[in-house]
Amino acid sequence: MQSAVRFSSQEALRFASCRTFRSVLKCRREHRLVPVHCTSHPSTNMATEAPRAAELANEVEVLKAQVAQLELSLKQKEQELNLVHPYSQSYGKTSIATILCSADQGRSLVGRSLRLGGWVKTGREAGAGAFAFLELNDGSTFDSLQVMLNKEVAEAAGTALNKLSATGTSILVEGELVATPEGTKQAVELKATKLHHVGACDAATYAIAKKKTSFEFLREKMHLRPRTNTIGAVARIRNALAYATHKFFQENGFLYVHTPVITASDCEGAGEMFQITTLLSKAEKGEDRPPAMSPEKIAELKAKVSAQGAVVKAAKEAAAADKEDKSLASKRDEEISALQRAKDELVKAEDNARWIAGIKHTADGDIDYTEDFFGKKAYLTVSGQLQGEYYACALSNIYTFGPTFRAEMSFTARHLAEFWMIEPEMAFCDIHDDMRCAEDYVRYCCKYLLDHCQSDMDFITKMIDNTAVDRLKQVVSTPFKKITYTEAIELLEKSVAGGKKFEYPVSWGIDLATEHERYITEEIFKQPVIVYNYPKEIKAFYMKLNEDGKTVAAMDVLVPKVGELIGGSQREDSYEVLERRIKEGGMDPVPYEGYLDLRKYGSVPHSGFGLGFERLILFSTGLDNIREVIPFPRWPGNALY
Amino acid sequence: MQSAVRFSSQEALRFASCRTFRSVLKCRREHRLVPVHCTSHPSTNMATEAPRAAELANEVEVLKAQVAQLELSLKQKEQELNLVHPYSQSYGKTSIATILCSADQGRSLVGRSLRLGGWVKTGREAGAGAFAFLELNDGSTFDSLQVMLNKEVAEAAGTALNKLSATGTSILVEGELVATPEGTKQAVELKATKLHHVGACDAATYAIAKKKTSFEFLREKMHLRPRTNTIGAVARIRNALAYATHKFFQENGFLYVHTPVITASDCEGAGEMFQITTLLSKAEKGEDRPPAMSPEKIAELKAKVSAQGAVVKAAKEAAAADKEDKSLASKRDEEISALQRAKDELVKAEDNARWIAGIKHTADGDIDYTEDFFGKKAYLTVSGQLQGEYYACALSNIYTFGPTFRAEMSFTARHLAEFWMIEPEMAFCDIHDDMRCAEDYVRYCCKYLLDHCQSDMDFITKMIDNTAVDRLKQVVSTPFKKITYTEAIELLEKSVAGGKKFEYPVSWGIDLATEHERYITEEIFKQPVIVYNYPKEIKAFYMKLNEDGKTVAAMDVLVPKVGELIGGSQREDSYEVLERRIKEGGMDPVPYEGYLDLRKYGSVPHSGFGLGFERLILFSTGLDNIREVIPFPRWPGNALY
Repeated sequence: MQSAVRFSSQEALRFASCRTFRSVLKCRREHRLVPVHCTSHPSTNMATEAPRAAELANEVEVLKAQVAQLELSLKQKEQELNLVHPYSQSYGKTSIATILCSADQGRSLVGRSLRLGGWVKTGREAGAGAFAFLELNDGSTFDSLQVMLNKEVAEAAGTALNKLSATGTSILVEGELVATPEGTKQAVELKATKLHHVGACDAATYAIAKKKTSFEFLREKMHLRPRTNTIGAVARIRNALAYATHKFFQENGFLYVHTPVITASDCEGAGEMFQITTLLSKAEKGEDRPPAMSPEKIAELKAKVSAQGAVVKAAKEAAAADKEDKSLASKRDEEISALQRAKDELVKAEDNARWIAGIKHTADGDIDYTEDFFGKKAYLTVSGQLQGEYYACALSNIYTFGPTFRAEMSFTARHLAEFWMIEPEMAFCDIHDDMRCAEDYVRYCCKYLLDHCQSDMDFITKMIDNTAVDRLKQVVSTPFKKITYTEAIELLEKSVAGGKKFEYPVSWGIDLATEHERYITEEIFKQPVIVYNYPKEIKAFYMKLNEDGKTVAAMDVLVPKVGELIGGSQREDSYEVLERRIKEGGMDPVPYEGYLDLRKYGSVPHSGFGLGFERLILFSTGLDNIREVIPFPRWPGNALY
Repeated sequence: MQSAVRFSSQEALRFASCRTFRSVLKCRREHRLVPVHCTSHPSTNMATEAPRAAELANEVEVLKAQVAQLELSLKQKEQELNLVHPYSQSYGKTSIATILCSADQGRSLVGRSLRLGGWVKTGREAGAGAFAFLELNDGSTFDSLQVMLNKEVAEAAGTALNKLSATGTSILVEGELVATPEGTKQAVELKATKLHHVGACDAATYAIAKKKTSFEFLREKMHLRPRTNTIGAVARIRNALAYATHKFFQENGFLYVHTPVITASDCEGAGEMFQITTLLSKAEKGEDRPPAMSPEKIAELKAKVSAQGAVVKAAKEAAAADKEDKSLASKRDEEISALQRAKDELVKAEDNARWIAGIKHTADGDIDYTEDFFGKKAYLTVSGQLQGEYYACALSNIYTFGPTFRAEMSFTARHLAEFWMIEPEMAFCDIHDDMRCAEDYVRYCCKYLLDHCQSDMDFITKMIDNTAVDRLKQVVSTPFKKITYTEAIELLEKSVAGGKKFEYPVSWGIDLATEHERYITEEIFKQPVIVYNYPKEIKAFYMKLNEDGKTVAAMDVLVPKVGELIGGSQREDSYEVLERRIKEGGMDPVPYEGYLDLRKYGSVPHSGFGLGFERLILFSTGLDNIREVIPFPRWPGNALY
């Protein structure tokens, strides 16, 4: 029995190329499809030099993969058969994405009986109160699915159409998927037959019942704002960019490393740090807090010690004068003991006096951190770079993706006290490899977003920034421009000569301000630009000194809308140069001992960069305020929810 | 022109099923292969109702995807051709994993000229000092690759064989990949022709030069320990489990949500919290610190106010007595002003007196947190669950994966001050769906580990825990046992009756101790067990009350080696019940207002769980101490690096 799958002449042309055919085989192997034998293809093209045993081993692998795949397929098919989300089986709920994001937007599911669960975006009654149309959203995709529900179905569930139509109402509804009339936006809708769950929502008190609410207002309703169109879309976009990040680095052989949030070192000096402590809560609880001790009491105890010292002196002399009189010796010993007790009492009192408002201080009046949880001052991290370097100098390619913190009193639309950062670090990687990686990574993310968040990006483009999709497409299609810092300064100076005004004057040696960065990327090149080789004076001590002795191998990726998206560098890998740079910077080398060790024991050239994740989302969406692109933003005075 | 790809009779049988054929089409669509038209398959099966325009649009999409895919393939092939890591191009370095983890362990690459870069694990000289064998490791895989290097190659690079043989030395070495003699562990080795980089490593001072070092010792050398076999393997295992986590949830339609690290609410009461503050550093800097203010000075100012009050009273009376005398009125007004000044001075002095040791206190003597960064007390999160619920009650299926904190003074091998947690939360999901998800997730992770970290797991099984691989295999192949809490207690009581001794006595109502949990999973069932429906008294207020009124829909996943790996529950979705439970627990409902809102506005049944990521690694590796499975462990007194 021989069944054939044939190709059209057009596809046959494609298959005629061995490379393409191999790519099919590769895909088959990777995705574990059932084997496809090519009988018409010359077998010599597939011959390998591997011995017989390896062939058999390979066949075993293929068969095992096939078994695994069939088991998986079986499970998937069973799921597909009822379309129910694997973890909503008790409710028999199908995700709206399963319908609307299918290849034919749900058309092939017409006639199926399904249950949908979610929240009513908008509802309207029609037919003189005989039925209602509910736009039902479950967050699995941007789009809502329309549910048509009649009065009888509502009443059977003990509710009314006007209650169900209220924005925010939750329902679990069963019905038949039907085709919509031609020209309707969506291909299918649900004709409800039964309501299994209703969670009422009182429009009068529901904070986000109104269609238009300001972002500022929503920041006070952070627990409800993911139900809005924009914040919901941002959540899916953020998720896609996060997953794209992991996929990119994993596919390129990087290991994900969790660098610590709590750190006792402030090595990079990247910014103001939050302190972590248990001292204040202990002070408030009054734990370990000794009785208050006044200066007068201390003085009194000191006088007592002094007086007793005189007594001891006299007793010693008396005992020395008459060595035969045992009672004098005994008296002397008693007075010495009394002196020791007085001294102990003084020490304890002085120690107690160091507890001020429940916090122990040192003799110098500083806070005594040996009493704190970590036995010394501890902070929230500002960067995982140093720890990342420790791992890269053992495992070659690593990346971090975690929260970082700044305690600056900044209220701008571009700063958060808590934000997420991605920091890859690579061994045997110089500044050019570093730039290559940064560019590939950003491009991968943009492509992933275009491929996976189409309806969200369409909404963003329509409502927030009409250049958003085009910007992503440009990044995907255009190689980043690369210029040195010196070239960047020349271009800016030329612009100034041509009449362009900047707030901050331009000359070689300045740190580029956001206005300069945005001008370069938005006006001069109108695309992402990487600027590299900066003056050493404006960059961190750990960046590799170039041969010119005045620049370092640092690079910044500048993008339209945001300015600096990425900052990175090759790291100084010479022990001598790094130690000199630390001292030149007026820093103490002792806390950097471990960091210097990396240059002492098997040093390798290595590089890395940091990308502020929220900036990537700002770039992708065109949103103006960073507080909208993180689920629970923190800034001075604000740590809601 | 018609070229055919035929199937064997066996595969034809498979393709005869339309369902399977559709799965091929689906794979083709998802992975963007060139289209495969099935001429022998009845075309009616593939007919759709879509109009012509949609078909063309679809074709455009397919072609675009094809172009993108081909471009990608081209890039991949180019990379494959030179085997160089994409971000080590400047050094021309190939990852050792590219060779050793290929299908034939590098055999087909014999004869290729390659550059490898990494660190020497061990080296030995041979041939009376004529050459050396170096085990070179770059962390891309567990195994090292052997480099054979002769004296001349070393000398040409200005170094000597004994220097290169020192453990920890870094090299970038070029050479020819050659086949090893039969019976050698590895199929290939590198015959060095040139050294491009040498980073010396002084064996006399290199802390981890010795082969055997204790884990305790390595914890003091946290910056170097990823270069050791065990910590390196753990890093790759941790990476695999982290990526498996993301893959599992993404493949099942969950959105990754970053819940905040900094929080102003201590809702769950899950444990002692770290406080975050900028008050201490401000106190130390002396910023905002007014001059010291003694109680005597305050008393003096109070007396002044009181005296001036009397003066004002007299002046007022005088002015009232003779309203014609303008000078009296003027005098009165002057005295009133003076009183105000005295009052202002007192208020300011009292305010200043509230600054104790640089920290402002309230009139009641508490610390005044309006002066702190967030305007109130802020903490490090102990769980993202509450914030996760906000997102699940808008977007249906979400998960968190981030750091969490406990400020308990715990020095055990099972506790860390900072650890990572995964917390999915699902709408329209009950306790049974919740258990299903937990089981599938753990199983997925175990399978991923077996598939992707074979050499690491082999090493772990050989050196750490000889049951490690078997334990993973069992989890993958055996459904988890599910029993109620009541059944668990009955089983434990039966064991006690049979002579088993526990430290803590067993009876219905007790919180299961680790000894009980481990006995259930390790001795009674010898496999993972899920225990559910716990007494409400021993579980959190937010867990859904069962109909019996005495148990809640909570579940714990217990696994051998670790005990509790996962804890989860269905959440209480009734506003009334939740509010009552909060009050019954003696808690103030005000901070839970937002949480209660979820039950007030479109409430849905929902569930979730939390998995301690480090516990999953302990389970997978059989390591005894949690400090080995996180890159930079934090515990009381320790925040190294």
